[in-house]
Amino acid sequence: MSIREIELEGHIIDSMTLPKVFDSIIDMGGDFEVLEFDIGKHKTDKSYTRIQIEGRDEEHLDSIMSEIHRHGATLPEIMDVECEEAPSDVSLPDNFYSTTNHQTYVRHGGRWVEVQNIEMDCVIVLEGVEAVCKPISHVKKGDNVVVGEKGIRVIPPERPREKSVFEFMGSHVSSEKPSDTLIEQVANEIKETKKSGGKIGFVLGPAVLHTGCSEEISTLIRQGYVDVVFGGNAIGVHDIERAIYGTSLGVDLCEGRPRPDGHKNHLYAISEVVKSGSIQDAIEDGKINSGIMYECEVNDVPYILAGSIRDDGPLPEVITDTVEAQEAMRENIKDLDLVIMMATMLHSIATGNILPSHVKTICIDINPATVTKLMDRGTAQAMGIVTDVGVFIPRLTNRILEDC
Amino acid sequence: MSIREIELEGHIIDSMTLPKVFDSIIDMGGDFEVLEFDIGKHKTDKSYTRIQIEGRDEEHLDSIMSEIHRHGATLPEIMDVECEEAPSDVSLPDNFYSTTNHQTYVRHGGRWVEVQNIEMDCVIVLEGVEAVCKPISHVKKGDNVVVGEKGIRVIPPERPREKSVFEFMGSHVSSEKPSDTLIEQVANEIKETKKSGGKIGFVLGPAVLHTGCSEEISTLIRQGYVDVVFGGNAIGVHDIERAIYGTSLGVDLCEGRPRPDGHKNHLYAISEVVKSGSIQDAIEDGKINSGIMYECEVNDVPYILAGSIRDDGPLPEVITDTVEAQEAMRENIKDLDLVIMMATMLHSIATGNILPSHVKTICIDINPATVTKLMDRGTAQAMGIVTDVGVFIPRLTNRILEDC
Amino acid sequence: MSIREIELEGHIIDSMTLPKVFDSIIDMGGDFEVLEFDIGKHKTDKSYTRIQIEGRDEEHLDSIMSEIHRHGATLPEIMDVECEEAPSDVSLPDNFYSTTNHQTYVRHGGRWVEVQNIEMDCVIVLEGVEAVCKPISHVKKGDNVVVGEKGIRVIPPERPREKSVFEFMGSHVSSEKPSDTLIEQVANEIKETKKSGGKIGFVLGPAVLHTGCSEEISTLIRQGYVDVVFGGNAIGVHDIERAIYGTSLGVDLCEGRPRPDGHKNHLYAISEVVKSGSIQDAIEDGKINSGIMYECEVNDVPYILAGSIRDDGPLPEVITDTVEAQEAMRENIKDLDLVIMMATMLHSIATGNILPSHVKTICIDINPATVTKLMDRGTAQAMGIVTDVGVFIPRLTNRILEDC
Amino acid sequence: MSIREIELEGHIIDSMTLPKVFDSIIDMGGDFEVLEFDIGKHKTDKSYTRIQIEGRDEEHLDSIMSEIHRHGATLPEIMDVECEEAPSDVSLPDNFYSTTNHQTYVRHGGRWVEVQNIEMDCVIVLEGVEAVCKPISHVKKGDNVVVGEKGIRVIPPERPREKSVFEFMGSHVSSEKPSDTLIEQVANEIKETKKSGGKIGFVLGPAVLHTGCSEEISTLIRQGYVDVVFGGNAIGVHDIERAIYGTSLGVDLCEGRPRPDGHKNHLYAISEVVKSGSIQDAIEDGKINSGIMYECEVNDVPYILAGSIRDDGPLPEVITDTVEAQEAMRENIKDLDLVIMMATMLHSIATGNILPSHVKTICIDINPATVTKLMDRGTAQAMGIVTDVGVFIPRLTNRILEDC
Repeated sequence: MSIREIELEGHIIDSMTLPKVFDSIIDMGGDFEVLEFDIGKHKTDKSYTRIQIEGRDEEHLDSIMSEIHRHGATLPEIMDVECEEAPSDVSLPDNFYSTTNHQTYVRHGGRWVEVQNIEMDCVIVLEGVEAVCKPISHVKKGDNVVVGEKGIRVIPPERPREKSVFEFMGSHVSSEKPSDTLIEQVANEIKETKKSGGKIGFVLGPAVLHTGCSEEISTLIRQGYVDVVFGGNAIGVHDIERAIYGTSLGVDLCEGRPRPDGHKNHLYAISEVVKSGSIQDAIEDGKINSGIMYECEVNDVPYILAGSIRDDGPLPEVITDTVEAQEAMRENIKDLDLVIMMATMLHSIATGNILPSHVKTICIDINPATVTKLMDRGTAQAMGIVTDVGVFIPRLTNRILEDC
Repeated sequence: MSIREIELEGHIIDSMTLPKVFDSIIDMGGDFEVLEFDIGKHKTDKSYTRIQIEGRDEEHLDSIMSEIHRHGATLPEIMDVECEEAPSDVSLPDNFYSTTNHQTYVRHGGRWVEVQNIEMDCVIVLEGVEAVCKPISHVKKGDNVVVGEKGIRVIPPERPREKSVFEFMGSHVSSEKPSDTLIEQVANEIKETKKSGGKIGFVLGPAVLHTGCSEEISTLIRQGYVDVVFGGNAIGVHDIERAIYGTSLGVDLCEGRPRPDGHKNHLYAISEVVKSGSIQDAIEDGKINSGIMYECEVNDVPYILAGSIRDDGPLPEVITDTVEAQEAMRENIKDLDLVIMMATMLHSIATGNILPSHVKTICIDINPATVTKLMDRGTAQAMGIVTDVGVFIPRLTNRILEDC
Repeated sequence: MSIREIELEGHIIDSMTLPKVFDSIIDMGGDFEVLEFDIGKHKTDKSYTRIQIEGRDEEHLDSIMSEIHRHGATLPEIMDVECEEAPSDVSLPDNFYSTTNHQTYVRHGGRWVEVQNIEMDCVIVLEGVEAVCKPISHVKKGDNVVVGEKGIRVIPPERPREKSVFEFMGSHVSSEKPSDTLIEQVANEIKETKKSGGKIGFVLGPAVLHTGCSEEISTLIRQGYVDVVFGGNAIGVHDIERAIYGTSLGVDLCEGRPRPDGHKNHLYAISEVVKSGSIQDAIEDGKINSGIMYECEVNDVPYILAGSIRDDGPLPEVITDTVEAQEAMRENIKDLDLVIMMATMLHSIATGNILPSHVKTICIDINPATVTKLMDRGTAQAMGIVTDVGVFIPRLTNRILEDC
Repeated sequence: MSIREIELEGHIIDSMTLPKVFDSIIDMGGDFEVLEFDIGKHKTDKSYTRIQIEGRDEEHLDSIMSEIHRHGATLPEIMDVECEEAPSDVSLPDNFYSTTNHQTYVRHGGRWVEVQNIEMDCVIVLEGVEAVCKPISHVKKGDNVVVGEKGIRVIPPERPREKSVFEFMGSHVSSEKPSDTLIEQVANEIKETKKSGGKIGFVLGPAVLHTGCSEEISTLIRQGYVDVVFGGNAIGVHDIERAIYGTSLGVDLCEGRPRPDGHKNHLYAISEVVKSGSIQDAIEDGKINSGIMYECEVNDVPYILAGSIRDDGPLPEVITDTVEAQEAMRENIKDLDLVIMMATMLHSIATGNILPSHVKTICIDINPATVTKLMDRGTAQAMGIVTDVGVFIPRLTNRILEDC
């Protein structure tokens, strides 16, 4: 039998840290003894506990440690992080440490250093006095990759002490909630974020356009509520199709029915942009006078259009290489405080993959499976709203703008 | 080999009658010869065709006839309908004629008589010079039940010559249509129906209340847009819960979160109504001052609350016997021109079961399966709108009322 | 400010009791002080805590108490339960105690008495030395209805210490799990239950028949794996339709396509049973020789067919009054150890409503919304399996029977 | 008013060609006169019709022509196709002809030439005596791009005269069909295709692995039933994860629960392949001994792994540039007779986009939205089966192999 001690600190009961640690130990057939337990006496007090974990042998204990570590358990002994060199590009040393999306510190040279650009399913590389989170594709031969769990501290987000639309544990997915209240809460979240100087990212699927919400999103961009837009070729193509021809995938947005010959419009839209050279050029040529792409260009709001194998065209702005597109998203995700995902499973999950868990995330989709998958894939902080973007966005926009 | 002749008349090509007849014959291994074909030369002209059907034997031919008859094929020989006496209550003679939900005529005593109260999956009973559609549970020993397909003419609805939200064949279920246009079309349909003196039924599930749309529906009732309401115990209970306590299933409709102790409110609501004696009495006692039930009572709009095995309580107004509840719905479905179904699979299908196919039907639900099942179960005239009632209803109500 | 003390005991951390209590207090704007905390040192040890709850005033404190009480908090002072007389039939005294579906004890005459037939959203009535759980519709004028939370102890189910398909907190709904493993676990659960003399209920929707699984379910009944069947008219009608005609809703179960004239078969099936008098009589008349209803009758397995407003017919066995049908289900739900729900939202929720939380519940449906709704409506112990019953049931049956 | 004549030929009634043409004309506010109608007298006879179309003016008429042309209407005058030079790379001349996915001929130099590699939403380019279908991204400055609809003949697939799992018009999406029959029909389709020397493509999502069906698909590849595999990085990574570690996304495929530390396995899997150099190298190094990738490599079955922005890694085999990945898929889609899509919306739609409509397509997914979207996006020939791949695939594989 092997034993080891861990420590836990914070609002470890109602933020689920301690229950998850006990759960994991029991699930994995380990045992524990609580050596010390200092419960927070009031709701703002933190708790502290020291627990002895027992495993069948060192290997068993290692696997238990690896699991509970991810919930925030740390070894009380003060030890530096360990690392090993990457044997070659894009390959990993044995027992490499795989990151969570929670805020993470490593003890390095005797002091705790926050890991930069934390993101799930990546590795930590020590660079001098710094610690950087890197996706596996960035790992270079000789990189000092962190291994094991020693000297690593993970800080899962805690349950907020105040009521808000983000109830940490109640991140429920339901279509049977009072809609006006929900809209107001999301609107407040957006307004509060901007008021406090925060940054907001929008992740958009083409249904936003097909359901006729181009104008509302455009207004939000123009009014400064959007700091970056993520999407695919489709959001760009159909936005420009709408701007030039008034259709989305050939459907007349005023009449709500396919326009004769409308099926060609999205190809014309691509062709027009190509002829001009770029979206920016097409705006200057007077071809595009409104819409999401237009407002982004005019208001210097960056947008990333990531390519996918479904694409027609694509537009010149689309980053067709998916690894490059990920990079571009990573660049633009830094400093975001709030991410609103609307009507896209692919881009929501892709964005969720690279978001730290402390970034507030709202996922709006008519398909409950989108939210469920997003959370199953690790973006557990996401709050899901199952609704129809076509009617939700206009009401949300009204609410945001009404007292401006 | 057996042969028989049929006739088809009307807009039989674009209303799909002829394609379906050819399809059925081919599917069932029969053959056909077109004896006469007089195609409508212009879009308003009707077509006519006389076709000889060939089957392996009389039985095979009978089964082909039985199938294509339902699409509107009639035997050209002028023959009276045949009938047989029901052997006992609730039982059927062999080869009884099972109805469609399309307008149906029987030739009886040398003249064509329209079958009253047509409804799918029922039988036709001759009563003197009349022909009445009866559900199997109404059949009495000795009733003259129509058998075979002779002397019966079915008139499936034809494709409308004008554009409208009801495109006969395009009754699509999609969540990716321009929402504002859709809302406007439904609003127009409702306004047009009332302007022309028509009657509108609303079928409501409790999500209408949970999402906070009680006020909007109440307004529509008060303003005379609703002629009858169908629902279950839940719509009554949670409407009254909201009226008395401001919650729906314990969720505070202003704050959007469960109110402490709120889980008891729906039981209190039932109890309060029971103490008064009835909803009407509870209104008179001043307990209920708003909401759907209130407006129905005050404005003499009939409502049918049909019991289900999920029910708590139920309210005194609930018809707990399902056969009686069906009867009450049948009574109130007569003369309806438009039915709006919102957020309920059980009641939508139940209503669809007893609706003639010429009644315009709009089914609004966030779950596409509700619409698909409704149509699969025979209510093929339904137009499905996949959206969130919580945001759709407020916008719809605004649109209906804005130019009143 | 008002204060009160509560106690909690058991595996209160990993079974989520304490986190939920802290959560509720914080959510409701209360405060707490932990007076005593005795943590279970090992995984089999129980924990104990005594906490002082603070509210703004007595009313606020009452509502906090009412909420946390449902998670298992009890007042340490030994007090008897309080009750008040019901003012009239089907009506409730103020501040009545609304039950959870967890095992519940009341302190009455100085001793703890278990409440019989516990079920959610009901009341507790004291009858002599007994305490009985009653739905509101059973309450009679003068019944001693329990009020407040004093002297009531709720025992929520605890997280199992052993691995099993029922992981208390991991009652996840996912379609992306290894199917064979899942099937084996469900099969084991069924076999273990029978081996230990337990009772199993099956709740069945008609899709079980439409997808062609009649034979498998029949075999399970014949082999003694089923102690009661719940369903609606449809399961009875289409089972008999299949037995007599080989179709389900007119679809030939061998060919997989609508049989000509098949749409009449379910009406014939009803008519045949009516002519005989009952299903039992139709079996004796030699009309029905196989299927679920047949096996139930022949093997004396009770079945409850509850009426709904969608029904054709219905069969004579159907209990058309929904309140009576609920009663019949309650009678037959006693002593069940495991309930398997398949492909029916209505009957699953109705069964869940009257099931105590300690009964293991597995809900199998292709629509994830069925499981989500079931759990949202309070049947939190249900484990959801999102799969296609048509292919799941045959493999499950094979696995159950393979080593018999 | 402007008029023009068109011709239609074939099984134009039951294959829906004529109804769709009438529909489109009426929808678009045009009128028609049937000049000649020669109906096929028997079910194997073709019909012929000549119709005069009337529009308000030439432009209106053009748009009607453009629409009905896509359903197979051709101008009776024998005219050569017209074309215009592409003004620059990736841009289109005005009034370019946008392709359907139906077999298409152009009249060029007095003779009808079949368009090669037909695919929806592309253009036709004349190259000498040949006509080639090109996606917009392939268009080069100076290419002879076909414009207008003159001299183009579209041949939509006709309703099969024989029963088969592919009923042209009944391409229904339902989860309530007899599963065994459905499985048998799909198995037959696969066996028949191979027996007649046809080629089969499999499009696979990672749920195929998560649900534990790796072995079954591997067997089908080994036995020669699979000619090409399309998928993404995930199918490769988790297949290799399973081969090396026995987990899929960290879930132990035998125990059905997350394995401690298992979340790292997919990153290790990528790393192992990278260390070896390629999947082929990793097989030679003895790291990978089973699974889908293994069987593809060993049996020389080509596979295309297309990158997406969700990807971890990715594997060296993944084509990260989406335009290149599309090209690779196009290369490998030629000559396919049957495509089986399983549990992936992204790759199914991407494959559907480049498939001609005569290729039989079966889409298997637990989410009905996948099939609906596939068909809405133009892959109307797809037959949808809503089921759980985890239980469907093993039974399908058994059925395919049982009489080999």
